[in-house]
Amino acid sequence: MIIDGLAIAKEIRNQLKEEIAEFDNKQIPPGLGIVMVGNRVDSATYVRMKKRACNEVGIFHQEVRLSEDVSQEELLQKIVDLNTDTAIHGILIQLPLPAHIDTNKILKSVSREKDVDGFHPENVGNLTLNRLEDVLMPCTPKGCIELLDKYNIEIEGKHAVVIGKSSIVGMPLSLLLLHREATVSVCHVKTQNIKEITRQADILISACGQAEMIKADWVKDGCVVIDVGINSVDDENAKRGYRIVGDVDFDDVREKASAITPVPGGVGPMTIAMLLKNTVNAYRSHNTKTK
Amino acid sequence: MIIDGLAIAKEIRNQLKEEIAEFDNKQIPPGLGIVMVGNRVDSATYVRMKKRACNEVGIFHQEVRLSEDVSQEELLQKIVDLNTDTAIHGILIQLPLPAHIDTNKILKSVSREKDVDGFHPENVGNLTLNRLEDVLMPCTPKGCIELLDKYNIEIEGKHAVVIGKSSIVGMPLSLLLLHREATVSVCHVKTQNIKEITRQADILISACGQAEMIKADWVKDGCVVIDVGINSVDDENAKRGYRIVGDVDFDDVREKASAITPVPGGVGPMTIAMLLKNTVNAYRSHNTKTK
Repeated sequence: MIIDGLAIAKEIRNQLKEEIAEFDNKQIPPGLGIVMVGNRVDSATYVRMKKRACNEVGIFHQEVRLSEDVSQEELLQKIVDLNTDTAIHGILIQLPLPAHIDTNKILKSVSREKDVDGFHPENVGNLTLNRLEDVLMPCTPKGCIELLDKYNIEIEGKHAVVIGKSSIVGMPLSLLLLHREATVSVCHVKTQNIKEITRQADILISACGQAEMIKADWVKDGCVVIDVGINSVDDENAKRGYRIVGDVDFDDVREKASAITPVPGGVGPMTIAMLLKNTVNAYRSHNTKTK
Repeated sequence: MIIDGLAIAKEIRNQLKEEIAEFDNKQIPPGLGIVMVGNRVDSATYVRMKKRACNEVGIFHQEVRLSEDVSQEELLQKIVDLNTDTAIHGILIQLPLPAHIDTNKILKSVSREKDVDGFHPENVGNLTLNRLEDVLMPCTPKGCIELLDKYNIEIEGKHAVVIGKSSIVGMPLSLLLLHREATVSVCHVKTQNIKEITRQADILISACGQAEMIKADWVKDGCVVIDVGINSVDDENAKRGYRIVGDVDFDDVREKASAITPVPGGVGPMTIAMLLKNTVNAYRSHNTKTK
């Protein structure tokens, strides 16, 4: 079974569109501030996709585009402006930021209530503590869990193996799987005999950014495989000279997996759908608090 | 090899005692506020041990003892008072609190800077994000890591299996082990075939509160075993009618383990030593900021 992230993401966008259409007309709509520094091609693509998704569902967006050599202070000031802007309910800083910028400091400056990427220490802390009611969660991990749920894939009691332990994907995803009562093993670049561990997985989630690393002999029969990787590999036959692949060798692994996400069209669209959802949730919390 | 937590904890206390003795005499000493609600015998024992440890190293302590039926509001007010008390640098709420109290709300009310138990969402978030410079960490996980370090037990690249996923021990400990580049598997009450996982452990840490659950056939030869459990079991031959045991059947497992903590005398004394250390760290941060 191929897990169709495109279809699920579209379903979520349609649902958000309906919800937003029903909001009080006299109020301003949900708004997303997008901060983009420099001209990275991949970042520009992601920002374009996010803006298109906002348009589709009825979220107002405002892009703050800054040159590659912007100073830390100027960037901080832009975020302070967005923090206090009443038309903005969510703030997205497109990563990576240039090397001369202190990324942690910038991410920390986004107000907790507008932190739709779920990077603020207090949001991260509440996620760790399983206090999920009022917390903005990182979009990719949330999207992975949502995919499993939409396909009625049981998490409780299953052995979930996560490859990668980044703050943005692997770590929060591992925590969410634990909160859902999976047995969780986290592997990474220092893991020895990694195949021995991945072969135990009922649910294998890879977020390590190694193109097609995971082969058929890494997984057991019937495993559910979620591929978070987005890697570009050279391909002379492709129009642009490259193609996008996941961390999983899809053609090799699909025969053994009971369910598997493709790349593209798996986790990717879910990440954007969750960003929209977080923005709407932030908007709702804001309106509840200011009532 | 038996890991001597008593000796390591004593060493740490001696070191803290020297450090405190060297602090500027004109300043007030480090101070710990201890909030104890009700009359639980085990809680009273822990509080007594903590006060004794404070006395030994030269930390001022002030106990706020409240009756079992104290209201949420009154308890909150006591914490607000401690938050603003300039003689107090760390605040410890002895758990568990009575059922009518919202424990989460109480723990959240402790100011981040005085949160020597490491329960505040922002401290938890920074721990999750591996920003450990300025963070107060939960005492028991910190004590476990310190024991491994003092005995020069390598963590990086090892397979660490943690039993239990509580917010106080299992979860933060798993995160710390990941930050130290261990491969980490987290097991708990919903884990199936738990022995198959624990038998893979290079380092096995149990924090599940099941008396002597872990037998020799749960561990592989040469495993390092850290036992966080403190369980009382009936024993007619004991003076008090019970004795304290860990989660590990010590006599059964010790032959196979390359290193093992006893209970009592393993992790327990380290928890208190780390509380003292956190209090001194909070004191130092406070003094640095107010300089």
